[in-house]
Amino acid sequence: MEKNVLGNNVITQIGVLVHDIEKTSQAYADFFGVEKPNWFWTDTVDVAQTEYRGSRSEARAKLAFFDMGSLQLELIEPDHEPSTWRESLDQNGEGFHHIAFGIKGMKEKIAVMEAGGMPLLQKGEYTGGRYAYLDSFKDLKVLIELLEND
Amino acid sequence: MEKNVLGNNVITQIGVLVHDIEKTSQAYADFFGVEKPNWFWTDTVDVAQTEYRGSRSEARAKLAFFDMGSLQLELIEPDHEPSTWRESLDQNGEGFHHIAFGIKGMKEKIAVMEAGGMPLLQKGEYTGGRYAYLDSFKDLKVLIELLEND
Repeated sequence: MEKNVLGNNVITQIGVLVHDIEKTSQAYADFFGVEKPNWFWTDTVDVAQTEYRGSRSEARAKLAFFDMGSLQLELIEPDHEPSTWRESLDQNGEGFHHIAFGIKGMKEKIAVMEAGGMPLLQKGEYTGGRYAYLDSFKDLKVLIELLEND
Repeated sequence: MEKNVLGNNVITQIGVLVHDIEKTSQAYADFFGVEKPNWFWTDTVDVAQTEYRGSRSEARAKLAFFDMGSLQLELIEPDHEPSTWRESLDQNGEGFHHIAFGIKGMKEKIAVMEAGGMPLLQKGEYTGGRYAYLDSFKDLKVLIELLEND
């Protein structure tokens, strides 16, 4: 794989899987002395165009974001449709899921990473942008998410 | 527990457990297009005064740090003496270990967190400061490290 594929090494987000986003959001808000953010559902599949392991998926998740210094901590409570969120929560329980990086040129980045041995795991659209999870475990030992905001 | 125990919510470090710090450091350096940092051993127990689950431990680890935006990514290859590093690596394999926050007043912070249901898991000294891992899984779903630099 070419070096510096992403064009930067700035971690913009840490994702954490939870069973109960209300409860864990409150725990974070209390522990860090900040406001509890409202959670929201990711878009339905007709808008999000979610694909998981190459197949369209109805999967959605409740998301809540905390500003923690220069990056966001994202709490994720997935539904029971197929997704990396649900798979990881079922297999490993609550806890760390991914680190995210902002990029430009999603299709090209995915193509380069897949060719370099980091297969696409899940992708989707959100208002103003799109995301992709690449299976980077073998080399980097953590899951990487790419975020492209228009 | 009192709110905002740490006095801040700035994530300064993400820790990742690995079996082979040379190999994974090279993978990170290549992927992000940065120099491979040198790893170093944590201090021996006479200097580090390492305690794990209430008992003195000879545990050491090889550490390597990458600057990733405003925070560090820390790779950790532990030896086979008892530590949170070794326990987590044996139980969960390679991958995410902790997020860290800078604090002042280690003893007081530990006391407040323990009273609030986050028991001390491991602590030790390093040149210029000290660290502690608190078992924050129940509430926050991730392990928290406190770092106090003098």
